[in-house]
Amino acid sequence: MAVIAGLDKNFSMDARVEPAHDGIEILSMVEAELSIVVDPAERAREADYPHSPVVRFGKDQPLRLDAGIDLCPFQIAYQTYGKLNAERSNAILICHALTGDQHVANVHPVTQKPGWWETMVGPGRPIDTERYFVICPNVLGACMGTSGPASTNPATGMPWGLEFPVITVRDMVRAQAMLLDHLGIASLFSMAGGSMGGMQVLQWCASYPRRVFSALPIATSTRHSAQNIAFHEVGRQAVMADPEWRHGRYFVERTNPRHGLAVARMGAHITYLSDAALHRKFGRRFQDRDNPTFSFDADFQVESYLRHQGSSFVERFDANSYLYLTRAMDYFDLAADCEGVLANAFKDTPTRFCVISFTSDWLFPTSDSRAIVHALNAGGARVSFAEIVTDKGHDAFLLEEPELFDIVRGFLEGAAKARGLAAAVQR
Amino acid sequence: MAVIAGLDKNFSMDARVEPAHDGIEILSMVEAELSIVVDPAERAREADYPHSPVVRFGKDQPLRLDAGIDLCPFQIAYQTYGKLNAERSNAILICHALTGDQHVANVHPVTQKPGWWETMVGPGRPIDTERYFVICPNVLGACMGTSGPASTNPATGMPWGLEFPVITVRDMVRAQAMLLDHLGIASLFSMAGGSMGGMQVLQWCASYPRRVFSALPIATSTRHSAQNIAFHEVGRQAVMADPEWRHGRYFVERTNPRHGLAVARMGAHITYLSDAALHRKFGRRFQDRDNPTFSFDADFQVESYLRHQGSSFVERFDANSYLYLTRAMDYFDLAADCEGVLANAFKDTPTRFCVISFTSDWLFPTSDSRAIVHALNAGGARVSFAEIVTDKGHDAFLLEEPELFDIVRGFLEGAAKARGLAAAVQR
Repeated sequence: MAVIAGLDKNFSMDARVEPAHDGIEILSMVEAELSIVVDPAERAREADYPHSPVVRFGKDQPLRLDAGIDLCPFQIAYQTYGKLNAERSNAILICHALTGDQHVANVHPVTQKPGWWETMVGPGRPIDTERYFVICPNVLGACMGTSGPASTNPATGMPWGLEFPVITVRDMVRAQAMLLDHLGIASLFSMAGGSMGGMQVLQWCASYPRRVFSALPIATSTRHSAQNIAFHEVGRQAVMADPEWRHGRYFVERTNPRHGLAVARMGAHITYLSDAALHRKFGRRFQDRDNPTFSFDADFQVESYLRHQGSSFVERFDANSYLYLTRAMDYFDLAADCEGVLANAFKDTPTRFCVISFTSDWLFPTSDSRAIVHALNAGGARVSFAEIVTDKGHDAFLLEEPELFDIVRGFLEGAAKARGLAAAVQR
Repeated sequence: MAVIAGLDKNFSMDARVEPAHDGIEILSMVEAELSIVVDPAERAREADYPHSPVVRFGKDQPLRLDAGIDLCPFQIAYQTYGKLNAERSNAILICHALTGDQHVANVHPVTQKPGWWETMVGPGRPIDTERYFVICPNVLGACMGTSGPASTNPATGMPWGLEFPVITVRDMVRAQAMLLDHLGIASLFSMAGGSMGGMQVLQWCASYPRRVFSALPIATSTRHSAQNIAFHEVGRQAVMADPEWRHGRYFVERTNPRHGLAVARMGAHITYLSDAALHRKFGRRFQDRDNPTFSFDADFQVESYLRHQGSSFVERFDANSYLYLTRAMDYFDLAADCEGVLANAFKDTPTRFCVISFTSDWLFPTSDSRAIVHALNAGGARVSFAEIVTDKGHDAFLLEEPELFDIVRGFLEGAAKARGLAAAVQR
């Protein structure tokens, strides 16, 4: 049974919690061609009035940012699946990655594609929504309903653009803690996230250790490497080199930096895969032809695939959000907050951890996960660690990986026993 | 003693061999800022009238291209160092990489920087110009004096732009063979090249095995991988997304796609290094500041470095050439010319090979070099193979790598003995 988000909540909703906005025409899935463009104004509307519940925090509840600025008012859009139990002890927070959003396990309102983690989250899935209450907020700085550069700046009535303050992973987590306070969830049974989502998981455990019973940081790191900063910088430069970017004022000027953002996405997408996976999927095969055309057409399948990745991405994502979120990842360095001693970030943590990496992930390689495990060990944490053998690269955490599913299911099962949660429904 | 190219040749020069053109103002080295721009028309002049010798082939000597087109007239710019001996048996051909040129061991006429392989080539260097006669042609499709998209199309009097035919590595090599015919060099004592240069070395050995006594393919492959095609495609899309590219007509329209080309270079540059090298050189250190600025400035040293790489590159390189040369690399697949059996490319080869790779090169990993070695073994070749331990990545072949120098020196020494070349001058 699919659970429709927002229909089965058993906690109180006050006036500031709004149901999914359904006055927006749902955009059809747009594929493959940059020339087919979603009106940026349409997407901007999603930034203010998302197709999901949203909590608005007023001027009395500012979000104190690492940049030293109080953000207020601001809002958080989120999605939920399953039911919160009477003890409020079965909540799992899912943290999404750079280009993800709150639509974990429902049809995406813009692309009409399935949710980004439907293989992991749902009835009977490893994160079983018949047993757990799953919450996924859109992160601060993103563009699907949580405040970010695409949102309307209440002071001007115009989109924030680059006037939006530069945010950090810690700011994202602080905002999420306010959301949980608002939802009346004092303590999370668990949290899970890959990549930037894993950074949020780690930051949560460092910032609010008593609120996290168990945690699954997947394919992630406690700090962004120089190479990863470099790749992000190329993406940002690609966006900012697009004359339609207009110093971030493209909504106001009715332009669209889609070419720059598509190039950024194409480059980033290579880093999410692996050489082996690209070879297996595409090799040197030609696309719809037997011989090279001696031109700059997409002769090779891999070129065609990448162009598609670029062009479909720009239909659903905001260029400024891409700048802000990559920047937040670059700034992430958990040890730096603890005078360079990572173990101090997790000292005496009560949280149980399951750290997961993938052999072919060269963006967040296993050595990054080992560093997390070492720090957790030094901090005296309970931690299990799994390196999964796969050629799928960093994106493996989003894909059909039976071993990943088994590990997540098993870890949550053990944690549920330890917390005294009711056993799983027999199916 | 530095040998000045073109001044000490002992072979006949006919009217078609022109000395280095010196009517062009030498451009000062331009660094760091995209706003400081070399007039594209200046660089275009280098494409027709280079600061090096050039051979012009007339309509009676067409270059038959893989695309099925006869290119004529066309020209090849090249540089030489040292003296050809009386037997004409001491010539070494150097093949440059994607963004290299003929200025191996002299000050670059545009950037005023040292030649790109001065550590390897020169008096007393591993490729010793007191002993060997070194020739380096600018490749077909490039922009430093050999015909390419930046050159003037003789049919129109305007720069070729995208009217220039798409070329292959085999076309480059065919043109080089015409240059050697012209210079009266029937057989090369040796050849060496890294990356795209190594592709040319391999193609030479496959196309003209009797003309190559020994060969050094370094950090290269017999075919471009899917991941490498993907990275190239991102670079091309970055160039073509720049509205100043104007479908390749930027010279005519007096625009300059420098932003797109800089982004392409930045992305590519990451692939030339390694995660470890970036970590060692830059880590997460800030540039001229102690704390993050919470902005999109180049906070991190690695960002500042990359921006510099992008902006300095566009001062010396042509955007269309970048498209053509990356395309040629993508098309390169030596086995495909031999019905998929790579060993057939080298069957009964008389050439002695020294194949070299670097442990941290993830663009042309050691596995690519091993595939070359296996094919050479299967073809019955004499081959030695060295994998050099370094964290410098693909660019190691251009850098101070004592082990590389020792191997090249030793291999050439052995080959010189086998060919009966006079012993090295005692220094």
